[in-house]
Amino acid sequence: MANLLRAAATWGLFPWRGYCSRGTQGELSKGFVEALKAVVGSSHVSTAVAVRQQHGHDESMHRCQPPDAVVWPQNVEQVSQLAALCYSQGVPIIPFGTGTGLEGGVCAVQGGVCINLTHMDKILELNREDFSVVVEPGVTHKALNTHLRDSGLWFPVDPGADASLCGMVATGASGTNAVRYGTMRENVLNLEVVLPGGELLHTAGLGRHFRPGLGLETDRLRPWHLPCVSPGSRKSAAGYNLTGLFVGSEGTLGLITAATLRLHPAPEATVVATCAFPSVQAAVDSTVHILQAAVPVARIEFLDDVTMDACNKHSQLNCSVAPTLFLEFHGSEQVLAEQLQRAEEITQDNGAFHFSSAKEAEERSRLWAARHSAWYAVLALRPGYKGYSTDVCVPISRLPEILVQTKEDLKAQGLTGAILGHVGDGNFHCLLLVDPEDPEELHRVMAFSELLGRRALALHGTCTGEHGIGLGKRQLLQEEVGAVGMETMRRLKAMLDPRGLMNPGKVL
Amino acid sequence: MANLLRAAATWGLFPWRGYCSRGTQGELSKGFVEALKAVVGSSHVSTAVAVRQQHGHDESMHRCQPPDAVVWPQNVEQVSQLAALCYSQGVPIIPFGTGTGLEGGVCAVQGGVCINLTHMDKILELNREDFSVVVEPGVTHKALNTHLRDSGLWFPVDPGADASLCGMVATGASGTNAVRYGTMRENVLNLEVVLPGGELLHTAGLGRHFRPGLGLETDRLRPWHLPCVSPGSRKSAAGYNLTGLFVGSEGTLGLITAATLRLHPAPEATVVATCAFPSVQAAVDSTVHILQAAVPVARIEFLDDVTMDACNKHSQLNCSVAPTLFLEFHGSEQVLAEQLQRAEEITQDNGAFHFSSAKEAEERSRLWAARHSAWYAVLALRPGYKGYSTDVCVPISRLPEILVQTKEDLKAQGLTGAILGHVGDGNFHCLLLVDPEDPEELHRVMAFSELLGRRALALHGTCTGEHGIGLGKRQLLQEEVGAVGMETMRRLKAMLDPRGLMNPGKVL
Repeated sequence: MANLLRAAATWGLFPWRGYCSRGTQGELSKGFVEALKAVVGSSHVSTAVAVRQQHGHDESMHRCQPPDAVVWPQNVEQVSQLAALCYSQGVPIIPFGTGTGLEGGVCAVQGGVCINLTHMDKILELNREDFSVVVEPGVTHKALNTHLRDSGLWFPVDPGADASLCGMVATGASGTNAVRYGTMRENVLNLEVVLPGGELLHTAGLGRHFRPGLGLETDRLRPWHLPCVSPGSRKSAAGYNLTGLFVGSEGTLGLITAATLRLHPAPEATVVATCAFPSVQAAVDSTVHILQAAVPVARIEFLDDVTMDACNKHSQLNCSVAPTLFLEFHGSEQVLAEQLQRAEEITQDNGAFHFSSAKEAEERSRLWAARHSAWYAVLALRPGYKGYSTDVCVPISRLPEILVQTKEDLKAQGLTGAILGHVGDGNFHCLLLVDPEDPEELHRVMAFSELLGRRALALHGTCTGEHGIGLGKRQLLQEEVGAVGMETMRRLKAMLDPRGLMNPGKVL
Repeated sequence: MANLLRAAATWGLFPWRGYCSRGTQGELSKGFVEALKAVVGSSHVSTAVAVRQQHGHDESMHRCQPPDAVVWPQNVEQVSQLAALCYSQGVPIIPFGTGTGLEGGVCAVQGGVCINLTHMDKILELNREDFSVVVEPGVTHKALNTHLRDSGLWFPVDPGADASLCGMVATGASGTNAVRYGTMRENVLNLEVVLPGGELLHTAGLGRHFRPGLGLETDRLRPWHLPCVSPGSRKSAAGYNLTGLFVGSEGTLGLITAATLRLHPAPEATVVATCAFPSVQAAVDSTVHILQAAVPVARIEFLDDVTMDACNKHSQLNCSVAPTLFLEFHGSEQVLAEQLQRAEEITQDNGAFHFSSAKEAEERSRLWAARHSAWYAVLALRPGYKGYSTDVCVPISRLPEILVQTKEDLKAQGLTGAILGHVGDGNFHCLLLVDPEDPEELHRVMAFSELLGRRALALHGTCTGEHGIGLGKRQLLQEEVGAVGMETMRRLKAMLDPRGLMNPGKVL
């Protein structure tokens, strides 16, 4: 707090308020901006329009709502001071990672200070024998896996975009590998969180500087500049699961400043397969049968005919334009051969009319690159249009009916949409193309998305499998969790953020 | 609420208070007991001393603290009415499953009403294609697996005792299969919880009677007698993770009245292996190497020389009296052969001097029965003595040092202790034998347990991997999570249970 107090002294004891008396949102007082600079240094604060606009939107269609200032803290001490400063002055706080979210989670709906955490990008501690790593919030999952390349370990959660790991924690991200390796929920062991008022919470135990006997004072004694999050044990039954509370909290409960993540042994060998089906039902049945046969598939992705057509064109594939599964298997050579054979038998029993596999890294990369480029391939179907992705998740047995309904809804609404999904989890996305100049089409897209969300709820699913609630799904969340669920969430929010300043307007 | 209101009318509008004016704890007013009977029926309420004493302790050494009354609700509506009744009258509520806990979680430290949930023991809904099941709180994990026998599915979490599944949710239980299949945290999809005041919360979405369009009133419209918990999707990013909040809450936040659990495909074949090592270090190194080699071991259990000696005597085994691993592998015949070969190579590289495997069901059962009987085998070492189990968990790399230290501490304290552990998770138990007539020895056992807890914390571990905090580890929890962690947990508790009546005196 020393810097903060010095800053306070410089301008008198808090003589400024966060917002100018004449302005409200959109105009931070000069004194407040100077106080931000005193914390992080002048070069790490910006109020430039271009910078603010860049931080006012993510990759979704939600309109840009820029913050009043952007700051780049260099360490957790600065994050704590920034939180205390903003909170004491009633200024909203919006955490920012890579800006690759899809539900408007970074839009500054009430203005405020955007805290960009990408300068904190150190991998603090790798524990090979314990299969864990401690990262600062700015480390992306690709950067982590590059760092891990020769360690025999990897971090499997891969949402597609090269998101920051703590952003992925905040979103509760998952992606293509979740069917085997779980989502962020299952892969976070401990978090360091700066609470709205600036206090430092370790969700699953104190850090390395914990000193038995010093009791309750320990967190205050930790030197700020040292790695702080305990590598942690693989499991715990000690008190309430605070880690789980912050995974998926979308920046509304605190700022995640470090995470201990669970690592997995890198697969010895990998093989990829694709197969086309006469119907959506046949593709989903194959998925269920593969899971029931306990084939430990690493990825099982569904792409509909529209997506396959787009991928063929965009990525120069020569696949059938039909409902298709992309599968990936991890294991030893011998195990892979058996997995592949089983998967082929099961898919053929379900009428697959094309099954081909690729072991060579180049061909595998080409296929997965096509899958990961599906978003751009679909966008290329109607140049100049923007994309919007839905994100419902249902029990797997309900997938065929909701996919068929969705296809019919698209037709009825005259919308262009491509479907692809993490079908092993029951999660799928409908990529909709919309003319940004056509408000009527935009309206139809939003109505379609809401209808799809309600269809998922009626089938015991969720309105969001991995993108989060953000701005756009707050009404659906109410319908999903009901009155008591909403009231419990509101009380949780009020408990941790009584002034409602942490990423306001999101989730609730 | 109809019954409840009728009951209230019968005795005038709440003319009674929960406790008699002359008595405090230990004496419920006659009117209150009548009100309990009006909710669940006379035959489902008992104030008999023997019954109360039976419900005042679990399998641990914590002294019996009986509740003032025991009630057996038959359905969730009754649970809700009981909670509302107790809460309005300031009477503590203690949920009770099978009483097989190990940290005094059911001791009625402030008296109150014990709600025994074992009469609610229906398996409400099995979804084979979705790998999920909805159970009432009284179903035990063995009963569930018996029910699943011909379904091709199973529920792998097995804490040893035949605990009730919702008790296992409340404890955050795990056990021998966690290394491959996860703990309760990873295997609960949705919970129905009666909150302290009687409100009904669905932690991950409303039940089957959810009706889009009816909005916030839906939870109140659900017919009470029908299955209520949504089968749920395999993943979700919708709002705060309320499910995770109640897993491991030890009955202090609400009463769990139904759970949707994740099922797994039953293994096609199973093989068991045992191997003895020259040292603890060699056994732990083998564990790490097996995990690093991505051998998907289903169980990997460590037993020290004392435990092996006890098992040899008690279960007529003929194993070496040395640090030993019990391993189990699940998969197809071909995959098993490869896994077994790899494990044998790795253990022999680490100096294992005996490796034997068993495929036949009979021999496998004999070995695991010996492992599961270890508690009784160790007890038999000193007839008439009682057992106490520690439960620390550390990062695997720190296991050898803490195991060696623990052995030395046992010797220094003159205590008889046997060590066995879920070594793939870094979790181990030290089973201590104590003369119940010797308070000095009891004191040494408690001091040893506390020292072991502190050693685990100093090594970035936790004081409890799977037994929970209960009564005995509240001080260690404070040291583990620190001031901010404790304050956050206290606020969580106060938010959901403002009068502090849900299983008071536990966890915090």
